[in-house]
Amino acid sequence: MKNIPHRIYLTEDQIPRQWYNLRADMKQLPDPMINPATGKPAVEADLYPVFCEKLAHQEMDNETRFVDIPEEILEFYKMYRPSPLIRAYNLEKALDTPAKIYYKFEGNNTSGSHKLNSAVAQAYYAKEQGLTSLTTETGAGQWGTALAEACSFFGLPLTVYMVKVSYEQKPFRKAVIQTFGADVIPSPSNTTEAGRKILAENPETGGSLGCAISEAVEKAVTTPGCRYVLGSVLNQVLLHQSVIGLESMTAMEMIDEYPDIIIGCAGGGSNLGGLIAPFMRDKLTGKADPRIIAVEPASCPSFTRGRYAYDFCDTAKITPMAKMYTLGSGFMPSPNHAGGLRYHGMSPVLSKLYHDGYMEAVSVEQTRVFEAAVLFAKQETILPAPESAHAIRTAIDEALRCRETGEAKTILFGLTGTGYFDMTAYSAYLEKRMVDHIPSDEELQKGFDSLPKIPGIQE
Amino acid sequence: MKNIPHRIYLTEDQIPRQWYNLRADMKQLPDPMINPATGKPAVEADLYPVFCEKLAHQEMDNETRFVDIPEEILEFYKMYRPSPLIRAYNLEKALDTPAKIYYKFEGNNTSGSHKLNSAVAQAYYAKEQGLTSLTTETGAGQWGTALAEACSFFGLPLTVYMVKVSYEQKPFRKAVIQTFGADVIPSPSNTTEAGRKILAENPETGGSLGCAISEAVEKAVTTPGCRYVLGSVLNQVLLHQSVIGLESMTAMEMIDEYPDIIIGCAGGGSNLGGLIAPFMRDKLTGKADPRIIAVEPASCPSFTRGRYAYDFCDTAKITPMAKMYTLGSGFMPSPNHAGGLRYHGMSPVLSKLYHDGYMEAVSVEQTRVFEAAVLFAKQETILPAPESAHAIRTAIDEALRCRETGEAKTILFGLTGTGYFDMTAYSAYLEKRMVDHIPSDEELQKGFDSLPKIPGIQE
Repeated sequence: MKNIPHRIYLTEDQIPRQWYNLRADMKQLPDPMINPATGKPAVEADLYPVFCEKLAHQEMDNETRFVDIPEEILEFYKMYRPSPLIRAYNLEKALDTPAKIYYKFEGNNTSGSHKLNSAVAQAYYAKEQGLTSLTTETGAGQWGTALAEACSFFGLPLTVYMVKVSYEQKPFRKAVIQTFGADVIPSPSNTTEAGRKILAENPETGGSLGCAISEAVEKAVTTPGCRYVLGSVLNQVLLHQSVIGLESMTAMEMIDEYPDIIIGCAGGGSNLGGLIAPFMRDKLTGKADPRIIAVEPASCPSFTRGRYAYDFCDTAKITPMAKMYTLGSGFMPSPNHAGGLRYHGMSPVLSKLYHDGYMEAVSVEQTRVFEAAVLFAKQETILPAPESAHAIRTAIDEALRCRETGEAKTILFGLTGTGYFDMTAYSAYLEKRMVDHIPSDEELQKGFDSLPKIPGIQE
Repeated sequence: MKNIPHRIYLTEDQIPRQWYNLRADMKQLPDPMINPATGKPAVEADLYPVFCEKLAHQEMDNETRFVDIPEEILEFYKMYRPSPLIRAYNLEKALDTPAKIYYKFEGNNTSGSHKLNSAVAQAYYAKEQGLTSLTTETGAGQWGTALAEACSFFGLPLTVYMVKVSYEQKPFRKAVIQTFGADVIPSPSNTTEAGRKILAENPETGGSLGCAISEAVEKAVTTPGCRYVLGSVLNQVLLHQSVIGLESMTAMEMIDEYPDIIIGCAGGGSNLGGLIAPFMRDKLTGKADPRIIAVEPASCPSFTRGRYAYDFCDTAKITPMAKMYTLGSGFMPSPNHAGGLRYHGMSPVLSKLYHDGYMEAVSVEQTRVFEAAVLFAKQETILPAPESAHAIRTAIDEALRCRETGEAKTILFGLTGTGYFDMTAYSAYLEKRMVDHIPSDEELQKGFDSLPKIPGIQE
C-alpha cells in the first residue's frame, strides 16, 4: 500500500487555472430567478444595479463549463493556496474505524475560512469594472473578514453590515474586519430605509442576516459606483468555490484515492457546492457514483424540513426571488442556536440537485456537533469552526457505521474553517449550558407563511 | 532566474528527523546554572524534581550535536509540519524594495504559534517517563494552548497557571485551553504558598509571568508524579525549536537562496533560537556570515538595556539561577505594553552569543510594531501576533534600507504566530489609544536591584 502522508499539498502550479461551473453539466437546471418588480424571469441586466457586470454574467451563465481564473486572482490565491488535504489518521484511530477519513482544510488563512476564495474574486471584478466601493453583510463574521482582506488588497472601500447581536458579542471579529480597513456598521442601522423601518418597529432587535442583506443591498443600489457582494447562496459563489473541490480531486488522484462519501456543512451552500463540484460532475456524467451528504443544523433545517419554493434572499424582499429549499425569509432560528449556518434558504443549484436525488441531507443537533468538534480538536489538534463541525459530526457517524459493517470506505469532508472567534459557544458546550432546539411544525409554518405569492408561478 | 513560488512547502519526508543542538558548536558555552540552595553549579540530577529526566538531560547536554526526534513526536509534527516558508512578494512590492523577503510561518496550527514544537516534545517525554500530570504557566496564552493540545493528545492532565490579568482579559484564550481539557487557574491563586504570599501582600494584583512560573513550579514539586514545563528560555526549548531553522534552511536550499539577514522577535528566545540555529552554526563554523538580529520591545529591553548577570527565572526565586541578559526578576513592564515578549530575562544561549558578538539586537516601540503589523496584514493577508510583528517591523526597516542603498539583500524573518486573540491591542492601535513607554533608567534600576547576590560569583 502506498504510504500516504498526513498532509497532501499540491504545488503552486497545481492550483486550478479555471473554475468549474457545475450548471454546465446539470441535466435539469434550477428554475430561473424572478424579478420581483415584473414577476418575470430575471435577465442578466436586471442584476447590474446590484452586482458588477462580470459577476452578473457568471450568475446567469449556465453553459460555460470552465471559466478562466484571472491572473490577479491566481496571484492572490498563491498567498494561501493550495490548501492541504489531510488524512485524519488520529481521528480514525480514536474511532477504531476501518474507514479512511480525509478532510480539505480551508481554515489556514487569516479569514479563517473558505470564504476568501470568492471574496477575492468578487473584489477583483469590482475593481476591474472601476467601481469605487462595495457593501456586504456578515453574521458570524467569516465572510466580512474575508471580503475586508480582499478589498484591502485591491484598494476598494468596503462597508460591512454586521448583524447587531454579532457586532456586540464578537468585538474581536469586528476588530479584525476593521484592521483590514473596512467600515463596520451594526445592523439594523439608521443608515438605510430598511434599517430605519425595522428599528422603528422593534428598537431592541438584535438583527438578522436577512435584514443585514437588505441594508447592504439598499446601500449599494443607492450609492454611485457601489455594488453589493454576497458570500454564499449565489451561483457565482459556487463557481469560485469550485477551487476547493478541484484541488481535492487532484490531491486524491495523487494518492490513488476516490471518495465513497463526500460530506459538507450547508448554510447557504458555498462550501458544499465548491467541495462537491467536480465529484458531482462525475456523478452527473456517470463516471462515478459517490454519496454526497449535506449537513445542516436541526435548528435551521432548510434541506430536511424546508419547502422547495420561490423565496426572497432578504427580509426586506428587495432581492430577486430564487427557487430553493427555504424555511421562508421570515424564519428566525432559535436564539439558542450557536453554530452559524442560520440562513433561511439554500443555493438554488444545490437545491435542484437535492430535489432531483443527486445528494442526501441530514440535520444534526448542536450538542452532538460540539461533541464532535471537541473530539476532533483533541485528535487532529485543529479547533474547528462550529459550522465545519457539522460535517465532522456526520463524517464521524459514517466512520462509526463503517466500524459496524467492517467496510473501509473513503470519506472526504470539508473543514471550512477555524473556531477562534466561537469560544463563547465552546464554553457553553463545555459548561453544559448548551441546549438543542428543534423547531416545531408551528414554528416552521410561520416561516412558510412569509413565502411570496407570484401570480401564475407560486400561488 | 528561477521562478520561486509564494509558498515553499517541504514534503513530509523533509521534516527534520533530528533536532540540532547549537551548544555543541559554540566556542564558548554559557556559564552553568547555579543551584540557589548550594550556590554551586547545578548538575543534571538537581533538575529532576522540576523537569522530567530526558528533558533535564537535554537541558544540560552541551555536547550532542544532533538529537534524534522520537517517532511519536515526528508523527505529531506531521499533523502540522512542515510549515511553509513564504516569499513576501506583495510586501516587497508595497515597500518598493529590491530586497527579497522570506518568512517562516509557524502560525498555521491551532495553538497559533511555534510553541507547539516544544510542547509536544515536553509532553511526550513526560508521558514516556510515566509521569501523571504537568504544570505550566501562560501569559498571552499561546504556550498554554500549545501545551494543552499536546497533553490532550498524550492523555496527560495539565494545570495551567494563567497570569490573572490575561485570564480576565482573554476569556476566549482560556476557553481554547479548556477545550483541550486543561485546568486553568488564574495566578496568583490560593493553590500555592507562592500565590498565597503574593495575594496577602497585594490582593488586587493582576499577576505576572514570574509569579505564575513560581506557582507552577511549586505545584509540580509538591505533587507526586508531576513535573513543570516551560515554553521558552530553556536550552531544551531551543533544541526543540531548531526544527524551525532546519526546515527554513532546507527550503532556502531548494530555491538556491541563503539569507543575508535573519530576524526574529525575542521574549525568552524560543523562536529566535530555533530559527537561527543552523544559520548560527554556519556562522560559528565560518561557513557563512549572515547578520542575525533579535528584536525586542522598547518597553522590555533585556538585550539592549539589560545586564548580563545571574538571575532567577521566577519572582519567587525558587528556580535555578541562569546567566543571561536580564532586567531583574523584579522588573515589571509598563501596563501599557500590549505585545507579549514581557519576560524579564533571555535564553542563556542567546545571551552568550549576543555577548560574544555573534548577533545584534534592536528594540522597537509598540506603535511602530502595530503599524508594521497592519501593513503586513493588508499585503500578505495574515494577521500577525503582536510578538511576531516585532520581527516584521525590523524586516521592513531593513528592506527600506535596501531601497536606499539599492541592495537586493535576502531577508528571512520568523512569523511566529497569529493575532486572533490580540484584537484588544489592535483596536487600541487603530483607535489611536496605544501609547509607547520607554522605561527610564530609574525604572530599570529597580529591576537590577532585584538581581541576586551569589558569594564568590556575583556580589
